[in-house]
Amino acid sequence: MLNRVRSAVAHLVSSGGAPPPRPKSPDLPNSTSAPPAAPPQAPRSPPARAGSGSAAPARTVEARASFCRPTFLQLSPGGLRRADDHAGRAVQSPPDTGRRLPWSTGYAEVINSGKSRHNEDQACCEVVYVEGRRSVSGAPREPSRGQGLCFYYWGLFDGHAGGRAAEMASRLLHRHIQEQLKDLVEILQDPSPPPLCLPSTPGAPGSSDSSHLVGPQSCWSSQKEVTHESLVVGAIENAFQFMDEQMARERHGHQVEGGCCALVVVYLLGKVAIIVRNGEIIPMSREFTPETERQRLQMLGFLKPELLGGEFTHLEFPRRVQPKELGQRMLYRDQNMTGWAYKKIELEDLRFPLVCGEGKKARMMATIGVTRGLGDHNLRVCSSTLPIKPFLSSFPEVRVYDLTQYEHCPDDVLVLGTDGLWDVTSDCEVAATVDRVLSAYEPNDPSRYTALAQALVLGARGTPRDRGWRLPNNKLGSGDDISVFVIPLGGPGSYS
Amino acid sequence: MLNRVRSAVAHLVSSGGAPPPRPKSPDLPNSTSAPPAAPPQAPRSPPARAGSGSAAPARTVEARASFCRPTFLQLSPGGLRRADDHAGRAVQSPPDTGRRLPWSTGYAEVINSGKSRHNEDQACCEVVYVEGRRSVSGAPREPSRGQGLCFYYWGLFDGHAGGRAAEMASRLLHRHIQEQLKDLVEILQDPSPPPLCLPSTPGAPGSSDSSHLVGPQSCWSSQKEVTHESLVVGAIENAFQFMDEQMARERHGHQVEGGCCALVVVYLLGKVAIIVRNGEIIPMSREFTPETERQRLQMLGFLKPELLGGEFTHLEFPRRVQPKELGQRMLYRDQNMTGWAYKKIELEDLRFPLVCGEGKKARMMATIGVTRGLGDHNLRVCSSTLPIKPFLSSFPEVRVYDLTQYEHCPDDVLVLGTDGLWDVTSDCEVAATVDRVLSAYEPNDPSRYTALAQALVLGARGTPRDRGWRLPNNKLGSGDDISVFVIPLGGPGSYS
Repeated sequence: MLNRVRSAVAHLVSSGGAPPPRPKSPDLPNSTSAPPAAPPQAPRSPPARAGSGSAAPARTVEARASFCRPTFLQLSPGGLRRADDHAGRAVQSPPDTGRRLPWSTGYAEVINSGKSRHNEDQACCEVVYVEGRRSVSGAPREPSRGQGLCFYYWGLFDGHAGGRAAEMASRLLHRHIQEQLKDLVEILQDPSPPPLCLPSTPGAPGSSDSSHLVGPQSCWSSQKEVTHESLVVGAIENAFQFMDEQMARERHGHQVEGGCCALVVVYLLGKVAIIVRNGEIIPMSREFTPETERQRLQMLGFLKPELLGGEFTHLEFPRRVQPKELGQRMLYRDQNMTGWAYKKIELEDLRFPLVCGEGKKARMMATIGVTRGLGDHNLRVCSSTLPIKPFLSSFPEVRVYDLTQYEHCPDDVLVLGTDGLWDVTSDCEVAATVDRVLSAYEPNDPSRYTALAQALVLGARGTPRDRGWRLPNNKLGSGDDISVFVIPLGGPGSYS
Repeated sequence: MLNRVRSAVAHLVSSGGAPPPRPKSPDLPNSTSAPPAAPPQAPRSPPARAGSGSAAPARTVEARASFCRPTFLQLSPGGLRRADDHAGRAVQSPPDTGRRLPWSTGYAEVINSGKSRHNEDQACCEVVYVEGRRSVSGAPREPSRGQGLCFYYWGLFDGHAGGRAAEMASRLLHRHIQEQLKDLVEILQDPSPPPLCLPSTPGAPGSSDSSHLVGPQSCWSSQKEVTHESLVVGAIENAFQFMDEQMARERHGHQVEGGCCALVVVYLLGKVAIIVRNGEIIPMSREFTPETERQRLQMLGFLKPELLGGEFTHLEFPRRVQPKELGQRMLYRDQNMTGWAYKKIELEDLRFPLVCGEGKKARMMATIGVTRGLGDHNLRVCSSTLPIKPFLSSFPEVRVYDLTQYEHCPDDVLVLGTDGLWDVTSDCEVAATVDRVLSAYEPNDPSRYTALAQALVLGARGTPRDRGWRLPNNKLGSGDDISVFVIPLGGPGSYS
């Protein structure tokens, strides 16, 4: 039984190279014309999006103020001001009186203690309906025929260098997933193996001829069996890429300067696909940092030395090499090594190492500590014009958890949190808080998950004392933005 | 407690690119001048190596006959002929009367049933003494000062396309490890952290000035702590590279056409470093095949498309794309994806995929099923001049197991085997044979490990019946060369 699964939004991580040439998405959501989501459809907190729901072209600049919070918080202008107050750091949750979030999900957030003007976290929780693009056989869809698919969606986005990328991703990433799933609506509802090949033009004359569908019965002797699950994984992977590409296209109009990490949960047909961007202990989360992705970064620098611009070396050294050490032998490791060995110091070893530092101080190109995420298209090395984006990957790591394989009790929860939570809270402390808070409520009280999210945020924020935010043990609380989803996996009225 | 750990020689696996420019090994062993190993020093089975122990230059061609077996088998010319007999497939083990292998290691081997002229497996088991190159401080070594280091070494080498690469590796790889460890003799025996920097010229005047040693007390604010263990790992990693480079240099003289996988165990200062080239279930082994290394191969092909020569595509498709499917949409995945998605088929998708097939039939460039190993410098794509070596990696995966952390009983063994064993024998079957054979002997009877190795080889070979070699369950036995080491981890007279 899964008990208190945790995951965490985390570090953007560097990529294995520039993204490959990709097939064009036939019907890309744009930043303003995306239709509103399926229920819940609470209005987005002010300022309202200009042109929301309209068919404005993709490059239209939205007339937006500088700050917004998740729609489901239903913040009034006064509430928004309070949420934006670094001194009070009031914890925000959806109102008791409003529509409950799907699955009775709990949510709480708090702004940082002043490190940025606004809260750079964003969140999204939606039920999204996917209508098939057309029938698999290529025949035009009959309106009465075929059911669409619904998926549940939770997303946390941890922005850096501004909140625009996080805000854009929170508004649009699920639309890209919706778009990518359109092809799969019928396929996923058909128990037979997916067709390996689809006709070229949806609904084109003659394309209903099913001989165009080259299924597993093909004459080719060797072919792989592709599962339904791997199609959903592929759809989510592509959705992240299209999201990142859209940010690249629209970054000037939208002033998307920074980037964001993303932690997304998709529930579809009984399975939860968890896209993890950080985490420590529980298998469904993994950190992506210059340290954990060292070998991939080094390999890219080695294979494409032009990306290092003569300023960096792909070799790692345990500390900066000094000019007077030329000719001596220093410990190093390259992209294929996990151990260290000595090498004679040459002139180009004096360049700054692509990867350096440890732990929270680990940096790629002396600039960034996260190496996967969305955005950052304009990011350059400090006092240089060398672009960093080629090393950043927007590909998610997708893990699939089959909810139907387990019997979950009301105390089984999936905790999603941004860095603000995990920087100061251990897994064990989260588990203890889950125990303490949930046991204080009746198992069928749906408000217990919001109470838990609030307790986790408060526990990471602390209280103002001794000129700072302090935890009960007098250590510093998190000065970062803190956002937490608590998703009950076996709670009342959930996905069953 | 470690019980019946297994590991296996396996598939060569493709690399993350051509090896980087590497520091030169100051004193590379060459194929003929390597001094004989520390005890046991049984003569190598005939044909004897010409020039063994002499100082012949590295490129000297050895006058060798076409077939040899491990020295420790002490085969007479008649015994060698029997070992080379595909019809009888007699199991070979070291003679009872001879010197026992270190740690009372058991060993058994059998030739294939005819797939190649000779046994293409090779094995090596040695105790190797490492004398320091000089003192760490750079002062000339005083003969009376400082102890050298001993390491125990077991190696299995599974050749393909000829036995020369396996034979060469079995003779020289431990010499390269010895060479790489020379710098570390004093460092490893000093409990203080390793120096990050060594003086340039060993023993040069003035280099005994210890201010050249920039230790962890350096003024640089950030430096990594490098462990002794990671130095040994780095030494082993580098030794594999130097071995592969030596094969490249000497391949014409030695007619090293093929390649080999390597599975090596090094015991040094209480720890076993296990270099794994295959394996399935136990954490200390991992398979390297076109399937398991797909993303690395694809990334290399994507970043260096010239390596694909216009003949291959780095994209994977579930089956071969057919020209008539141009314009249709086919499932694919690229180097960043674990899931599958549809893409419109374009002209270049008709190229052969870099990686195709499944399981034992998985192939890289339609040619090779193993993607890491030594040798294969001349390997080309079938009916093409496209070289395959750039995709093959000679970097090992090194895992460290601290023997002193556990109390081992005489039944705790490390089983190393070549493909011939693991192709037809499951982990569970090996474990059952370990139980059965060891319990039939007294715990302090050192011959039990040879008996176990023989039983494992016999169990994989089967007996001749119905025009083939059959197992008791009537399935086909392995027609491959089969070689097995059984290393007792807590047996009598072992490493304590």
